[in-house]
Amino acid sequence: MENIRYELLPEIAKLGHVALETTDLEKSLWFFEEVVGLEKTTTKDGVHYLRAWGDFEHHTLSIQEGPVARVHHIAWKAKRREDVRNFAVLLRKADVEVQEVKAGTEAGQGDAIRFQLPSGHNFEIYFDMEKPPAADPKRKSVLKNQTYKAWRKGISPRRIDHVNIGTNTDPAVLLDFLQEKLGFKMREYLKTPDDKVGAAWLSVTNLVHDIAVMAQPELPTSHEIHHLSYWSDNAQDILRAADILAENGITFTGPGKHGISQAMYLYVIDPGSGVRLELFSNGYLIFEPDWEPVEWKAEEMAVGFTFWGEQAGLSEQDRKTIPAGEPLKSAKKV
Amino acid sequence: MENIRYELLPEIAKLGHVALETTDLEKSLWFFEEVVGLEKTTTKDGVHYLRAWGDFEHHTLSIQEGPVARVHHIAWKAKRREDVRNFAVLLRKADVEVQEVKAGTEAGQGDAIRFQLPSGHNFEIYFDMEKPPAADPKRKSVLKNQTYKAWRKGISPRRIDHVNIGTNTDPAVLLDFLQEKLGFKMREYLKTPDDKVGAAWLSVTNLVHDIAVMAQPELPTSHEIHHLSYWSDNAQDILRAADILAENGITFTGPGKHGISQAMYLYVIDPGSGVRLELFSNGYLIFEPDWEPVEWKAEEMAVGFTFWGEQAGLSEQDRKTIPAGEPLKSAKKV
Amino acid sequence: MENIRYELLPEIAKLGHVALETTDLEKSLWFFEEVVGLEKTTTKDGVHYLRAWGDFEHHTLSIQEGPVARVHHIAWKAKRREDVRNFAVLLRKADVEVQEVKAGTEAGQGDAIRFQLPSGHNFEIYFDMEKPPAADPKRKSVLKNQTYKAWRKGISPRRIDHVNIGTNTDPAVLLDFLQEKLGFKMREYLKTPDDKVGAAWLSVTNLVHDIAVMAQPELPTSHEIHHLSYWSDNAQDILRAADILAENGITFTGPGKHGISQAMYLYVIDPGSGVRLELFSNGYLIFEPDWEPVEWKAEEMAVGFTFWGEQAGLSEQDRKTIPAGEPLKSAKKV
Amino acid sequence: MENIRYELLPEIAKLGHVALETTDLEKSLWFFEEVVGLEKTTTKDGVHYLRAWGDFEHHTLSIQEGPVARVHHIAWKAKRREDVRNFAVLLRKADVEVQEVKAGTEAGQGDAIRFQLPSGHNFEIYFDMEKPPAADPKRKSVLKNQTYKAWRKGISPRRIDHVNIGTNTDPAVLLDFLQEKLGFKMREYLKTPDDKVGAAWLSVTNLVHDIAVMAQPELPTSHEIHHLSYWSDNAQDILRAADILAENGITFTGPGKHGISQAMYLYVIDPGSGVRLELFSNGYLIFEPDWEPVEWKAEEMAVGFTFWGEQAGLSEQDRKTIPAGEPLKSAKKV
Repeated sequence: MENIRYELLPEIAKLGHVALETTDLEKSLWFFEEVVGLEKTTTKDGVHYLRAWGDFEHHTLSIQEGPVARVHHIAWKAKRREDVRNFAVLLRKADVEVQEVKAGTEAGQGDAIRFQLPSGHNFEIYFDMEKPPAADPKRKSVLKNQTYKAWRKGISPRRIDHVNIGTNTDPAVLLDFLQEKLGFKMREYLKTPDDKVGAAWLSVTNLVHDIAVMAQPELPTSHEIHHLSYWSDNAQDILRAADILAENGITFTGPGKHGISQAMYLYVIDPGSGVRLELFSNGYLIFEPDWEPVEWKAEEMAVGFTFWGEQAGLSEQDRKTIPAGEPLKSAKKV
Repeated sequence: MENIRYELLPEIAKLGHVALETTDLEKSLWFFEEVVGLEKTTTKDGVHYLRAWGDFEHHTLSIQEGPVARVHHIAWKAKRREDVRNFAVLLRKADVEVQEVKAGTEAGQGDAIRFQLPSGHNFEIYFDMEKPPAADPKRKSVLKNQTYKAWRKGISPRRIDHVNIGTNTDPAVLLDFLQEKLGFKMREYLKTPDDKVGAAWLSVTNLVHDIAVMAQPELPTSHEIHHLSYWSDNAQDILRAADILAENGITFTGPGKHGISQAMYLYVIDPGSGVRLELFSNGYLIFEPDWEPVEWKAEEMAVGFTFWGEQAGLSEQDRKTIPAGEPLKSAKKV
Repeated sequence: MENIRYELLPEIAKLGHVALETTDLEKSLWFFEEVVGLEKTTTKDGVHYLRAWGDFEHHTLSIQEGPVARVHHIAWKAKRREDVRNFAVLLRKADVEVQEVKAGTEAGQGDAIRFQLPSGHNFEIYFDMEKPPAADPKRKSVLKNQTYKAWRKGISPRRIDHVNIGTNTDPAVLLDFLQEKLGFKMREYLKTPDDKVGAAWLSVTNLVHDIAVMAQPELPTSHEIHHLSYWSDNAQDILRAADILAENGITFTGPGKHGISQAMYLYVIDPGSGVRLELFSNGYLIFEPDWEPVEWKAEEMAVGFTFWGEQAGLSEQDRKTIPAGEPLKSAKKV
Repeated sequence: MENIRYELLPEIAKLGHVALETTDLEKSLWFFEEVVGLEKTTTKDGVHYLRAWGDFEHHTLSIQEGPVARVHHIAWKAKRREDVRNFAVLLRKADVEVQEVKAGTEAGQGDAIRFQLPSGHNFEIYFDMEKPPAADPKRKSVLKNQTYKAWRKGISPRRIDHVNIGTNTDPAVLLDFLQEKLGFKMREYLKTPDDKVGAAWLSVTNLVHDIAVMAQPELPTSHEIHHLSYWSDNAQDILRAADILAENGITFTGPGKHGISQAMYLYVIDPGSGVRLELFSNGYLIFEPDWEPVEWKAEEMAVGFTFWGEQAGLSEQDRKTIPAGEPLKSAKKV
């Protein structure tokens, strides 16, 4: 009867947060707190910890001032506490340098590890994270399953959704790493004319993607971030977001609907850091364990990228990225 | 290094389908095909196999004529092919009678097993299921990740979502079985004044519930079904559904929003079989592996059941159920 | 060629504003400014002048403290400046007492007249009204045809829509007055079993109703107001309003959809004054000059009142009204 | 007391219908009936009479085969029966050639007149028009104030909204005619750098525009039509329309939101005739009799044309028009 129990590697449960460094803290905080409408959990050591009204963990975005705009790391929550340590063991066995991050280094967070993808993107894996209620009782939701009242200010998305990273190198190594070492499953991908994967959407959850990877030779480094994304419940909320952004004089791309992921989207750049935010709704979920990754050929990508609406990715602004890796001279050391 | 690999029991991946028997086949097909707008995959041996435009597998609802209206079984897709067999082994070890169902017994489906919950509800577990494209090319979506064009007729929900079952017995045994034997995780529950669980919402996916259990002493049997549910992308779609139902002279309860699950809902009864359908949107997802089940006390259930809108569960119609178990004199034997 | 020019009486162009007196000014201002999200134009002599982001005139709601909660008057904008004077002449000829109100009595408003309907409801007719831009440039819309940025706080409806008044007397006299003296056109009405008009929806604009009249013998006076209404662009906005109200612990009736007017509705009571507010979207417009008023028989009113959703008018709270006439001991004299 | 009654010219009440001639009748009918989802009232003498589910009059669009694609005439309903004759008198006095059209020439329509604007656009004015119920009782709405059930097929807009015409001549003469002779009021307009009106939005109703005029020297004639428009209740309905169009392989421009009119839009071309259809929701209403036309300078038109979303008017397809005037060799004589 030995075969009714399976052996499993350590696993990632979900995207946790994005640690952003900005050259204009005031502007980034205005953007994410007032325009987007994220709530602040706390500020500690110059780091501002934010989350959406429907996020449960301590933060899903941290922002601090830095000499250059970049994403310091992208953090993932492990499925079990011991997975953090076990990921460290497995990664080191694969000759990946792993840095241990003591509990409390980030507000609300327990012991964690940090390491670089083959592309140089900085990842963090943690398990323990406080789930504090709203500090201000007036902002607390009357719903026991919701952290803050919704709709208090700005666009007011529900929760963090995914990240989209870019690389100027062959993405095959990076995609192998994400799948083999970290357990991400391929959900949809772009097959290039020379039979390579040019872009890929992967997840560990029922979402179509917790992470997307875009390979673009013209990117400045091997470890860029194209956008992070927050999710709203209704397509109408994205139209309301468009009103709010336009009223605040902030240009954006969209609204539109991707064929891939079926997401209704709108892309807007934080005027402080230059990082792009995707405001996002609808889309589909994948429950099938025997999912066959959906292959999109180059000639199908018109529909794949833009089922309808204002096409993303055409303008120079749409292609702008900021780095998401390699230790820079920053307040925080990886 | 033995502890970096985990042992795991067989697992359920998702709700697969509901097998409905109706005393008025024509009316049930009119309701589910024309009013709700499900697509028919095929009809075989008097069984009509339906699915929504965003469902991938062969069917998520089957309907056939029977001497009494009931749900013949509720089917779940296992995570791995061998899980089907391994569930059988584990269930038999626990003295649960398991029936093997040969591939092809249900159209599109591979080998499966059927068994009864302690409450008498009939469950099926399968792994292999065809994922046929739309038979009629005109109905095929131009999107490679979507089965049919949306919005072809009727309410047009995207996909099956969950089932809600009821029992007139102590639900503790049933809930233990769902959690211990089948791996469902408790997400939210009602704690009764005598410190018991009066209702529970459980899932194996990121949804708040793939199954809900309501304990109500006044129910006719221990194995009732309160409703099955299909999901739409936007709250607006539920309002459109209300228009369509009202225009078809079909009464319903809602729209409203549950506190528990945060679902925007509308409940309507199939005039053929009497089974209730929940049309459902919004709600939240649970990605946290360390989720603490949300406890609702009796005095909090006004908000828990109805955050706003027309209150469900008040009228006699709202409490009507049909059985979902014990072999009856039917065309199909469990 | 004399017959190519028509003779016309003075005309009303639109509902202007509602002048509310509340026994709890702080609570009423919290409700209308913070929860509903109206903008304040100015405060003068203890009167707070509010309007929605899409209103153009100086105010559509004024609120002041008073010894009892009531609507001091309902104001209508005449189609031409001379209509104000000419309405006075015509009304006096019909033995209606007309009071002249000097420019500046209400902030932003020119010369006006006030008089009572046969039911005792206080009406005001004005023509000149300032259309000031947003005082705070930050709140000013970037759109040249919109007064304020939308979505700044609370429910954020676009504009005032209509009033609904009640009387415990025979409504025939009142309805004749509205039609014969003031030019309102009957759009829809309830025909009672004894062949009378029990309720009526009338307008001078393309809206189905600028004013509705409900005859209910059980009302405390002949001159009650059942609700005033603000309009939102999308049904989804009414659902968002439901979230906001529920989070603020404010109970309400709805959402639902009336058959009459086809309005998607939600009714909520100002906790300060007790006046009811209808948050309202969708519905239809009447462009036909040869419109035949739609007659609803008593037995059709289930659909007429509630096409779907939570039924309005059933509970004691739903029937509560406040007076809208007869000079009371108040800070402001009619 | 002579001055309490006003003299008034004949008046237009509303846009009635657009009479379209197509070179591919089958394709145009497929587009307007199946994709857009208009209902057919009747077919008579090769003319197909269509309307939306919320239109009351016999038809708002007629389609027939013709040697070239064009709009045969744009029809307006007069406010009073005698206005039809009186418009004829007034127009002839102004040396406009007026053609009398006998009752029954168009199905459902009474006596009418036809004439050309100075630009050559063909207009029709009628008063009497049947308002038949849905021929098929199954398609009849259960609502007494709605012609058909909504959402039966396709995009399913509620009603006709406006027309947008273009001319390659100086629009001043045309705009004077619309205002002086036909009573249209200027609502918004584009002031060109040389202090002329380059585009204008005018109405006789509370809508911002029943007709818009675009002056573009590059247009092929002085009497083009840029689009006709149908209205949907919710912005979400426009997104659903985008899904439906994309699934049918029909390209379109949008969704986006105009600054002028605040309309949420989507532009799509009938593949049969080449006429453009605007699917349209939201926007604002004008109730003010003392409305000051909103002036947009050339440098403000980026916001004026496109507040957000995919910009209309940029591509060659976006500028394509078909003629809407001068008698061609057609089945129907003006």
